[in-house]
Amino acid sequence: MKDLIEKIRQKDRRALSRMLSMVEERDAKSLELLASLFAERKSSISIGVTGPAGAGKSTLIDQLIRTYRKNNQTVAVVAVDPSSPFSGGAVLGDRVRMQKHYEDEGVFIRSVGSRGKTGGVSFSTRALLDVMNVYGTDVVILETVGAGQSEVDVMNLVDTTLVVLTPEGGDSIQALKAGMLEIADIFVINKKDRAGSELMAHEVQTMISLAPQETSWKPPVLMTLAQTGEGVDALVQDIQKHVSYLEDQDHPEIEQRKLLGAVSEIIKARVSQEVMDFCSSDAGLREKLQQDPKTQNPYQIAIECFDRLDQARLARAKASKGK
Amino acid sequence: MKDLIEKIRQKDRRALSRMLSMVEERDAKSLELLASLFAERKSSISIGVTGPAGAGKSTLIDQLIRTYRKNNQTVAVVAVDPSSPFSGGAVLGDRVRMQKHYEDEGVFIRSVGSRGKTGGVSFSTRALLDVMNVYGTDVVILETVGAGQSEVDVMNLVDTTLVVLTPEGGDSIQALKAGMLEIADIFVINKKDRAGSELMAHEVQTMISLAPQETSWKPPVLMTLAQTGEGVDALVQDIQKHVSYLEDQDHPEIEQRKLLGAVSEIIKARVSQEVMDFCSSDAGLREKLQQDPKTQNPYQIAIECFDRLDQARLARAKASKGK
Repeated sequence: MKDLIEKIRQKDRRALSRMLSMVEERDAKSLELLASLFAERKSSISIGVTGPAGAGKSTLIDQLIRTYRKNNQTVAVVAVDPSSPFSGGAVLGDRVRMQKHYEDEGVFIRSVGSRGKTGGVSFSTRALLDVMNVYGTDVVILETVGAGQSEVDVMNLVDTTLVVLTPEGGDSIQALKAGMLEIADIFVINKKDRAGSELMAHEVQTMISLAPQETSWKPPVLMTLAQTGEGVDALVQDIQKHVSYLEDQDHPEIEQRKLLGAVSEIIKARVSQEVMDFCSSDAGLREKLQQDPKTQNPYQIAIECFDRLDQARLARAKASKGK
Repeated sequence: MKDLIEKIRQKDRRALSRMLSMVEERDAKSLELLASLFAERKSSISIGVTGPAGAGKSTLIDQLIRTYRKNNQTVAVVAVDPSSPFSGGAVLGDRVRMQKHYEDEGVFIRSVGSRGKTGGVSFSTRALLDVMNVYGTDVVILETVGAGQSEVDVMNLVDTTLVVLTPEGGDSIQALKAGMLEIADIFVINKKDRAGSELMAHEVQTMISLAPQETSWKPPVLMTLAQTGEGVDALVQDIQKHVSYLEDQDHPEIEQRKLLGAVSEIIKARVSQEVMDFCSSDAGLREKLQQDPKTQNPYQIAIECFDRLDQARLARAKASKGK
């Protein structure tokens, strides 16, 4: 196990792939592996980029990659993607812009599929971010597609969250409603050449001043034109300011809450996997499914499964005690 | 327990509130209650309304309510809302349009908060839909705010899903990327008076014809102007057609998959609750949190918690066996 982690540190891509598929399994062994890996973490910057569709997130990330690469820093981009076979292609189309970076050894791009993994996206993403850290990237950028609750949750995994908005009102306001105001460390009003961008920035400033403040960090509101790279240097500077702020400040309550969140999320992911494994192998459940599904009572079946799951755990606990 | 359910059937609002707060607890008892309640379900129509922000979902739902109320059918609207204190007010502002229905006894509007409930939104929403059914509403409309993965998941809970799009390209295309193409039973191109609506309808038709077909239902593409109600009667007719289609057709594999999804979701919600209860009371975890949180290894803590959780289960199982 130590060997695998050592290989990852030495940038062995095969070891990296093996690690990533082990993480997907989410068994007890992969948890132990992640615990050992976590102990090897180095200091690195993690940036989240979220905001409504069409805000220009990919273009902005492209510019961030350029800037960090100019400074000889290595970058990983982790995209949380709804990975259905059909939409897969469309999302990939979006990434054409980033494609030129695929040939750059200092840039690593990977997506985490969210389809069919309710409640587990955060765990997979968290694990991926930790693996990328040990693999040795200086900057990890987490991008979400969409602007729902799961996207907000995922942003808890990074140090600095950018919320990217555009002057074109409606969807930006809706994004703020969807909980993005509370998670933003830096606001980026992109497409600053469009009409209404000053007004948008002003509105966001007002919203910030009205929102309850949890820390002494006041989110700056920056204006960019990602297509030309205008404003990106200032953005990188503000990201660095936020990183320094986090290092200097001590917020034990916030850190405690984050840690508690992380621990319960990891336990839940493990437990969910246990439930899924059980469901796919339980004969009683299979039998129920064979009967007319329309007439079945899912709550009743769940109660019966839960009883059998408890018995299975009991048997397993006894067996491990007997060892 | 039977008494509470009987009261709900008699439209006792206090019994309804009590039921809903019991559901939130997610303990073994509430599962039994839901199993009994499920057995009392009547036939009713459940419609999901999803799509990007600004597509006019609320206005369209307002028109659907009017139409069903004209036919003397009772309607419940369940809105899945990110319920942070700040965004709460903003989302409520959106619902001003629906406010006139608050005084109508035949309309019931309720939201399910999604904040802080990762992976549990579907369970709460499912339970709420079942409770509203037994409470006696002819039509249940489920609305989502946002267009992310959790919103897509929630739509599995209804019979007929409307995906509402607007001619204003970008965000609609992004919504389709986010997995909305696969869940749509009916497409609604709203704001049909805007430029590009015909083209949008044509594009969606093309996407439908390219997508892999799982059933013999081909999603119709309708054009509406929700503000005036134009096209809404045709929409209601198509919803009815889809409901009849579902009744007539037999898709045991799809039904089986849905049932399996429901059962595993219910077990997961119950197990997650167990984990959260454990985390909030475990002394070992509390002690870890008191130490410098920045230096802690969440995977290692989770492994230790998991061991103690197993021991607690073992003790509980022994105690119940001893009874």
